[in-house]
Amino acid sequence: MNDIFATLESEARSYSRTWPATFDRALGSWLYDEDGKPYLDFFAGAGALNYGHNNPILKRKLLEYIERDGVHHGLDQATVAKREFLETVDEKLLKPRGLDYKIQFPGPTGTNSVESALKLARKITGRESIISFTNAFHGMTLGSLSVTGNSMKRGGAGIPLVHATPMPYDNYFDGQVDDFLYFERLLEDSGSGLNEPAAVIVETLQGEGGINNSRAEWLRNLADLCRRHDLLLIVDDVQMGCGRTGPFFSFEEAGIVPDIVCLSKSIGAYGSPLAITLIKSEHDVWEPGEHNGTFRGNNPAFVTGAEALRQYWSDDTLEKSTLAKGHRVGQVLETITSKYDGTMAKGRGLARGLGFEAPELAGKVSKAAFDRGMILETSGPESEVVKIMPPLTLTDDELEQGLQILTDSVEAAMA
Amino acid sequence: MNDIFATLESEARSYSRTWPATFDRALGSWLYDEDGKPYLDFFAGAGALNYGHNNPILKRKLLEYIERDGVHHGLDQATVAKREFLETVDEKLLKPRGLDYKIQFPGPTGTNSVESALKLARKITGRESIISFTNAFHGMTLGSLSVTGNSMKRGGAGIPLVHATPMPYDNYFDGQVDDFLYFERLLEDSGSGLNEPAAVIVETLQGEGGINNSRAEWLRNLADLCRRHDLLLIVDDVQMGCGRTGPFFSFEEAGIVPDIVCLSKSIGAYGSPLAITLIKSEHDVWEPGEHNGTFRGNNPAFVTGAEALRQYWSDDTLEKSTLAKGHRVGQVLETITSKYDGTMAKGRGLARGLGFEAPELAGKVSKAAFDRGMILETSGPESEVVKIMPPLTLTDDELEQGLQILTDSVEAAMA
Amino acid sequence: MNDIFATLESEARSYSRTWPATFDRALGSWLYDEDGKPYLDFFAGAGALNYGHNNPILKRKLLEYIERDGVHHGLDQATVAKREFLETVDEKLLKPRGLDYKIQFPGPTGTNSVESALKLARKITGRESIISFTNAFHGMTLGSLSVTGNSMKRGGAGIPLVHATPMPYDNYFDGQVDDFLYFERLLEDSGSGLNEPAAVIVETLQGEGGINNSRAEWLRNLADLCRRHDLLLIVDDVQMGCGRTGPFFSFEEAGIVPDIVCLSKSIGAYGSPLAITLIKSEHDVWEPGEHNGTFRGNNPAFVTGAEALRQYWSDDTLEKSTLAKGHRVGQVLETITSKYDGTMAKGRGLARGLGFEAPELAGKVSKAAFDRGMILETSGPESEVVKIMPPLTLTDDELEQGLQILTDSVEAAMA
Amino acid sequence: MNDIFATLESEARSYSRTWPATFDRALGSWLYDEDGKPYLDFFAGAGALNYGHNNPILKRKLLEYIERDGVHHGLDQATVAKREFLETVDEKLLKPRGLDYKIQFPGPTGTNSVESALKLARKITGRESIISFTNAFHGMTLGSLSVTGNSMKRGGAGIPLVHATPMPYDNYFDGQVDDFLYFERLLEDSGSGLNEPAAVIVETLQGEGGINNSRAEWLRNLADLCRRHDLLLIVDDVQMGCGRTGPFFSFEEAGIVPDIVCLSKSIGAYGSPLAITLIKSEHDVWEPGEHNGTFRGNNPAFVTGAEALRQYWSDDTLEKSTLAKGHRVGQVLETITSKYDGTMAKGRGLARGLGFEAPELAGKVSKAAFDRGMILETSGPESEVVKIMPPLTLTDDELEQGLQILTDSVEAAMA
Repeated sequence: MNDIFATLESEARSYSRTWPATFDRALGSWLYDEDGKPYLDFFAGAGALNYGHNNPILKRKLLEYIERDGVHHGLDQATVAKREFLETVDEKLLKPRGLDYKIQFPGPTGTNSVESALKLARKITGRESIISFTNAFHGMTLGSLSVTGNSMKRGGAGIPLVHATPMPYDNYFDGQVDDFLYFERLLEDSGSGLNEPAAVIVETLQGEGGINNSRAEWLRNLADLCRRHDLLLIVDDVQMGCGRTGPFFSFEEAGIVPDIVCLSKSIGAYGSPLAITLIKSEHDVWEPGEHNGTFRGNNPAFVTGAEALRQYWSDDTLEKSTLAKGHRVGQVLETITSKYDGTMAKGRGLARGLGFEAPELAGKVSKAAFDRGMILETSGPESEVVKIMPPLTLTDDELEQGLQILTDSVEAAMA
Repeated sequence: MNDIFATLESEARSYSRTWPATFDRALGSWLYDEDGKPYLDFFAGAGALNYGHNNPILKRKLLEYIERDGVHHGLDQATVAKREFLETVDEKLLKPRGLDYKIQFPGPTGTNSVESALKLARKITGRESIISFTNAFHGMTLGSLSVTGNSMKRGGAGIPLVHATPMPYDNYFDGQVDDFLYFERLLEDSGSGLNEPAAVIVETLQGEGGINNSRAEWLRNLADLCRRHDLLLIVDDVQMGCGRTGPFFSFEEAGIVPDIVCLSKSIGAYGSPLAITLIKSEHDVWEPGEHNGTFRGNNPAFVTGAEALRQYWSDDTLEKSTLAKGHRVGQVLETITSKYDGTMAKGRGLARGLGFEAPELAGKVSKAAFDRGMILETSGPESEVVKIMPPLTLTDDELEQGLQILTDSVEAAMA
Repeated sequence: MNDIFATLESEARSYSRTWPATFDRALGSWLYDEDGKPYLDFFAGAGALNYGHNNPILKRKLLEYIERDGVHHGLDQATVAKREFLETVDEKLLKPRGLDYKIQFPGPTGTNSVESALKLARKITGRESIISFTNAFHGMTLGSLSVTGNSMKRGGAGIPLVHATPMPYDNYFDGQVDDFLYFERLLEDSGSGLNEPAAVIVETLQGEGGINNSRAEWLRNLADLCRRHDLLLIVDDVQMGCGRTGPFFSFEEAGIVPDIVCLSKSIGAYGSPLAITLIKSEHDVWEPGEHNGTFRGNNPAFVTGAEALRQYWSDDTLEKSTLAKGHRVGQVLETITSKYDGTMAKGRGLARGLGFEAPELAGKVSKAAFDRGMILETSGPESEVVKIMPPLTLTDDELEQGLQILTDSVEAAMA
Repeated sequence: MNDIFATLESEARSYSRTWPATFDRALGSWLYDEDGKPYLDFFAGAGALNYGHNNPILKRKLLEYIERDGVHHGLDQATVAKREFLETVDEKLLKPRGLDYKIQFPGPTGTNSVESALKLARKITGRESIISFTNAFHGMTLGSLSVTGNSMKRGGAGIPLVHATPMPYDNYFDGQVDDFLYFERLLEDSGSGLNEPAAVIVETLQGEGGINNSRAEWLRNLADLCRRHDLLLIVDDVQMGCGRTGPFFSFEEAGIVPDIVCLSKSIGAYGSPLAITLIKSEHDVWEPGEHNGTFRGNNPAFVTGAEALRQYWSDDTLEKSTLAKGHRVGQVLETITSKYDGTMAKGRGLARGLGFEAPELAGKVSKAAFDRGMILETSGPESEVVKIMPPLTLTDDELEQGLQILTDSVEAAMA
């Protein structure tokens, strides 16, 4: 690996340290380094590559669009590509699910979407405070960082992050405490000292936080609590949306309808920056241009994003496949955890994790997997969870191949 | 224009209101709507299209890269495309100018770069407060918004934006007051009540603020003041960098070397989201992953961005052309302002403006230009300035055509 | 009652509304209105009159001091009266208890003491955040208000109060949840999102919050948690100190030694404004004048305060008497609560309360008592608790008289 | 001097360091140490002793009140003493000046009054930000500290003080810049980045800030600016009110009527803690108890405060005397400044100062005066101003005696 990364790139760089290879090409579930060595990608761009690398169906559309000089950069101007994207979102996502959302283009990344959601929630309610959850991850810009749990990342803010209060995520106390006991009591008690919140922001499954799943029942109770106390419910579906847990939206299983939904990562489908914020139409109180940004309209991502919706979300084939593959991952994780003490299986759909009581083991597994030609990331406050997030489109063979490497890597790490 | 934009897109949408057309294709200095009607683009993606729409040289490289399945999405992993981008930045930008900067990929937009710069400045100094300038624009996420002047946009935050103090920009008092009289006095007076700042963030020419130019001397005095008072100097070159004012960096003319530089918009060259933060190597105190994000490594933008540096910044041809064309714009603006009272010529390079004492006239000019097939945006706190920012690569004929439409539109608006 | 109070005094006035009489004289446990009608005072200046109104022993000293033109106002200059006060505090309070505290005069009220404690804790630790408890009351200036629970009072700030996080006070969940489960888990989990606290501020018994007692064991566990996590422990003993719960300091029973102690109310002994902040000597890192104020040295209060320490704290007579009288109040409260459903006995020492499930009943009891010639206040977030806080020096007859009125008033209110 | 002050009192102590004597008695303009040594007091409790130490007229009333067991501590209950105080304020201060103010008792110190004023201004306007002035001093609790200039004292907060912006006080730029040029421009420019303020808080003459006078014209322009921009005007008259500059209110000369006025220090007249907040009746939007505190009703201070109003403010004798004595001080200061380069005469009324270009000289003068039996304090950001603030009631002989000591001390310091 050429060391210009070490000499010229900032010390902030991260994944290039985890996987010391220089990648050149990529296709489907595979990355290839500059010497042609293949790596099976079980990280999938942290959820930005749910349809795999350089998906051929999408690639064809992308090349056509570029070839014919379709508008590439269009600020937030109306374009044909944007119109088709909007129409497809409406047809494939909103209408079939009976969702009455307006679509905002808040800038092309997850944190832009979260920032827009928080700003809007504060504008709607006239309140400042936000309820976040332990081990949440929402992004690195100041608004998003204030609702993120990780203390190292929070420390990077350089100012006190003060307009959010963390509440325990599902199962934070291993079932010892009733859900929302603390949260609801603070809301009900006018002497509690809790600043009245504008909104709750939640991930239905915390990816960066350590593949922490929340139960559908917990989410329903949360939605109910929000309704009773007049709080807006924001679901940050940046990492878990776009089919990662099975259905397109990760909250579908729970049957809830958030007031605001943040989407990014795989919404553009080809790995290009794109984000949208879905807003219940009654809450769309933005003034024109009140939240703007140069790269709100990434037109090639509209083209690939719309095509992905047509290809993968016209029926439930992908959803079923994801659930089946997730089930298979779960089986292998059970085998592993039944064999090794101090390990636990986590997650649902194709957002799975293998947790270790001894945090350093997760890193060892990741390294052992890399040595065996597989990309596996860790997450959690102490990087104690091996994160299993392959492209949803991987083949069964690739899945088995990856699970075998995982099994071998765990064995190597535990040795 | 299909009204799905009105029914499904959030009220936050802005430019689609200004220019009620649905664009389909674009090439060089031209946008074409879905009926094939051409529009001469004197806005250039707010500076994101300095090399024009779908620049053929860059397009070829982009298509090749996509065709051969080059890594499209790579988080911040090391890739061949990223290495070439880093090498090219080093060779074409840093070394020739003797700049000792580390390069951070802070996320793909200008506001990501600004957020990273503010966080880093606070971390380096252990201080919270930032000095910004009147009518500054730095972005819509909470950190960037706190150093932005526009009250409507600030109001969108929904929380008090409190860690910044605005100082008067160059010529804010029409020369009545010595530069930095107020700023320096507050710094020197231990009883002034000014929170000790970590850094100053400045645009050398304020685009969104109304094409307000700062003199080289003013910038030198600012840099000198920062040095004397141990403040970091951050230049937000998101809109004015990449050759917009002539040289690659807008601060080159002043001969200053900022501690941190924010670049985005045209750094990716083809209109795709990309941003970098340049950090004096002594200040690169980031921890690995302390500031991260999914779309830090937009590989196709590395490809086009590097190619643009090779094509346009291997010699001073573009810089000279920009200055010459800017000079020509200036001549026409002089003609207009000498003809009409209540108008003023603003800006430098190809970041030019025509200001109106009666703010509504600027909007009328923009509308008249649109009716004549030209995209012209307004800026300034009351949208009182017509902003003239064509692609740097436009031809002399296109320039004259645009200036004629501008002249005609002013005449129509003043009628 | 002359209505100049209604016409000229601000709407902020409060107790003059609760007890619509104009008082003229006062002695011991009695207030007399301008018509000479006596009122038995079971509120005792909210704890500022632990030694009764115009205590004759103290009065003699006060008159002598004024007669001989002792320094009345002395800023924080050294005076003979201040020296004697310091010496007496040392001899009667600190040395006998083995307490190594420095004494700060932070301004003459409880909130001044709390503000000084919070500032100092932040200075010592370099951290901003404070842990407070549900239904805490610490004062009305911005620092103290930020750690106060009452939402109406917090709302009065007019800015977000953001540097504190409330934790559940003892028995907040009726024993359903382990003490400090939530608090300690958030501290231990580096991904919890809790800003690392500088200190914990606690009342050992919450007066304004509704006469909520905390168990000695809970306080010990809190002190232990603070030690393990390197948090400073601040006890706000403004209302519960000076013997209100029996011993001079309300935390003595628990056997803990706070890092900082706030005292006011009865520390001056005659009802005059005085406050002190006790600081473990290792933590006394103040710069000279870093926290100042005009009325830090209220010399007549030094005189009466020192005399009260000599008179009442040279042996354990008062402490035992307080405990005995408190026990007697407890008996009567038991009788009441066993008779009426929806009532509960609260508190310890002579800080007692009678809580009502139907909040409005407490106000009715207070009114009925006033009609019967007794001053009884309510507290709690919904004013649902009748607060029983007579002077510690009341006679047994007065105690029985008051308890009879209380019993009658409850009967009247429940009728 | 007994060193219990050094061993037991916190390092925060200040004036006991400046004047290393232990004072015992005081009368009129004189303090006496424990050995009977007299000190002529030209500091007067920082303005808390405008009527001198232990003023015999007031003392008589105070003794009578205590002797007859008048209510000493009364929370904010209605008392006869409080009624007489209210009536006297109405009769002697408000009615004669045509002032329509409600009176709030916000707690007994200046900072309590300032906190109440800021809270109320924010409540009235719904805005958070306050405009303060360079070198302002308003108190040490967090709200007041945020509008105070001194960087050492601000640093004591331990959190960023963020809801205020300092503007240049009168003559901050030695007349080089038009009054309010900067302030008004920022208000008018919707792109300035200034958070819209709720109120302006100003001292008409800055005592702690260095005896900086503001011109009547400047104050009128400020009041006018506030009116035009819908900002509340708060005058902090804690140190300069009660006749210090001649008229009772320091703003009378300018002919302005603030929306809110803060009074403390000499309002109780005998050096006891008392403060009031005057609120234009239309702005009295407090809820009952929304701002409270134990020591709001310091009844002995009501007695002496009312008596002082009757004695000294029934005609203009004191006002004229103050102006005449102030004039005499001014003459002597002129003599001194004409003799010594690098000195300047400051102030008006009996709030006078002698400023030194070499800051350490002020401290030397103070020390030389102490050696000569006089109490003289310094102020200003670098303690560069000798502060001349004797009791208003000093005799002509005492005045001459003091001025001679001042003259001698300056000579000694300059030697």
